[in-house]
Amino acid sequence: MAGNIILVAADVLLEACERILQKVGVPEDQARIIAEATVKADLRGVGSHGVLRLPAYVHRVQAGLMTADTRLRVVRERGATVLLDAQGGFGQVAGAYAMNHAIERARQWGVGVVAVRNANHFGIAAYYTMMALPHQMIGIAATNAAPSMAAWGGATAVLGTNPISVAIPTGQEVDIVLDMAASIVARGKIRSAASQGERIPLGWALDAEGRPTEDPEAALEGTLLPIGGPKGYGLALVVDALAGVLTGSDYSIYLASLHDLSRRASVGFVMQAVDIAAFSDWTEYTNDMASLIDVIRHSPRAPGVDRIYLPGEIEWLKEREYRQSGVPVPVKALKELKELSAELGATVDLPSS
Amino acid sequence: MAGNIILVAADVLLEACERILQKVGVPEDQARIIAEATVKADLRGVGSHGVLRLPAYVHRVQAGLMTADTRLRVVRERGATVLLDAQGGFGQVAGAYAMNHAIERARQWGVGVVAVRNANHFGIAAYYTMMALPHQMIGIAATNAAPSMAAWGGATAVLGTNPISVAIPTGQEVDIVLDMAASIVARGKIRSAASQGERIPLGWALDAEGRPTEDPEAALEGTLLPIGGPKGYGLALVVDALAGVLTGSDYSIYLASLHDLSRRASVGFVMQAVDIAAFSDWTEYTNDMASLIDVIRHSPRAPGVDRIYLPGEIEWLKEREYRQSGVPVPVKALKELKELSAELGATVDLPSS
Repeated sequence: MAGNIILVAADVLLEACERILQKVGVPEDQARIIAEATVKADLRGVGSHGVLRLPAYVHRVQAGLMTADTRLRVVRERGATVLLDAQGGFGQVAGAYAMNHAIERARQWGVGVVAVRNANHFGIAAYYTMMALPHQMIGIAATNAAPSMAAWGGATAVLGTNPISVAIPTGQEVDIVLDMAASIVARGKIRSAASQGERIPLGWALDAEGRPTEDPEAALEGTLLPIGGPKGYGLALVVDALAGVLTGSDYSIYLASLHDLSRRASVGFVMQAVDIAAFSDWTEYTNDMASLIDVIRHSPRAPGVDRIYLPGEIEWLKEREYRQSGVPVPVKALKELKELSAELGATVDLPSS
Repeated sequence: MAGNIILVAADVLLEACERILQKVGVPEDQARIIAEATVKADLRGVGSHGVLRLPAYVHRVQAGLMTADTRLRVVRERGATVLLDAQGGFGQVAGAYAMNHAIERARQWGVGVVAVRNANHFGIAAYYTMMALPHQMIGIAATNAAPSMAAWGGATAVLGTNPISVAIPTGQEVDIVLDMAASIVARGKIRSAASQGERIPLGWALDAEGRPTEDPEAALEGTLLPIGGPKGYGLALVVDALAGVLTGSDYSIYLASLHDLSRRASVGFVMQAVDIAAFSDWTEYTNDMASLIDVIRHSPRAPGVDRIYLPGEIEWLKEREYRQSGVPVPVKALKELKELSAELGATVDLPSS
């Protein structure tokens, strides 16, 4: 394992997150949800959305830009749909509540859609969509995010990478869990190329004038490129229209970044649950899913490819491994967490480097 | 205008389609729907899904592989959800009925989801999602299709390009209408490169062994590449799980192509309508949409870009133009339509080349 990474048991990370959050006024049950959603990202190998982000959440609470105790208000409801106001609270608390509520509506009406306004960054979308799986339901989630991509043909950031996640139960050991941003790569990948003095491939990003670039520093001043050109742009715009405009949250350039401590951010998202039983018998459905997965997995492979994975399977394998080995956390992130704990007077049991 | 293209008035095309369809037993009202959905593709500049396809539909009916009179049977229903069986009929008739029904459910429950099994190719997905717009609703549609893409890491076709469409009303002159396949390009684009003896860019397709290729002939023997690599693969798989498996239709390699006259095809799709009024006031919503669109449209442009378009706007501009000028139809497609009319004894008023 690289020297700048330490393996930490998931439970230790969970407890540290909970204690830190409680010190800034997050109620115990909510701290648990936020900690679980956050550590889940590290467990699935998506460290960029893991405990690395906890200090930013805490700083927003300390700056009075985020509410420590998330209280949800029902703004509208009709049949299978609900609009909630998270009143400036944690995205994780609002997200988990919204998906649970969508699942309840789906049990009654076949489908449930719960939209949330005025929340904050919720971590990985897959955490919420996967909540539908044990209920034999499909979970769908989309959220907007602070701008980092240009419109197709544009030169400045007007759209977030606005991720979409779909979790589909398979009745097999591994479920299908798609969780994708609308950009080719995350900014983190460009940042890491910059820090290692490497070039980036053409097609990842534009510079500040909207020109394709291989220079990571220029890319960080510029914008991320969407998948499939106008298609990824279209997906990101559609998500902003739904998660931002339809919910009554901030959108496009008006949505502040998690790290912008000068203003509040009103993040929006939409959670949907679809009950398999409203459309199919579980046995018939899982038989067909097994057959679909079998065809995909055992189709002839391209040269040099060892194995064909389902969406989310690599993350599932990582979680299985990291629950045994411990979760890899960058030394720097660990140091920040420890400093934060000390500053807040939280007793945590994090290992030293 | 190129010599191999003729401009034909939309009404003339519509009537020709209707008469041809009626001659093979399609009831008048259904022939109208199929003709409208088909000509709409030509009007929006998506000729690959337009009148070019009519002979294939007719041949399937003549071969006993498609039912001329589409009758829909309700298989299941619960609250906001319905599963319909199209019993081997036309995708266009089933699609229009399903979206209208989703709109009705959404009026009552805020959202409506209508899934269809055992249908056929329905043309462009945007035709159905746009049906939601005048009702101040969002329309969402996805369908599976015969395989043309490999799994990510695979070498043979196991997934269709499985398009997703989302139509979002804006209250402005132009609405947002995303309609995208999960592949970088359509097979038609590779076929046209092949016929003109041109190379294709790396990244469009793989050859039959799963190797990247610039040779269009090798690509036509191989598979299309998905947008964003594993992301487009994930989108296509998710759509097949929903439209294929969940509905109880054919999926993956088991779904026959429109042009395969050796067997029936059981295409599946899912239509969803979301009522804006369940989440927002129309005035507040359209004000925010106008502001979002304004930011996108007027953001600084990349070098050489004249204008930033919304998803579906280029198609909207084409429709406006073609309704005046006539619809461009390849001479070859026109000749086939005329031959088909003559063979069926249908009186049509199509121009000669």
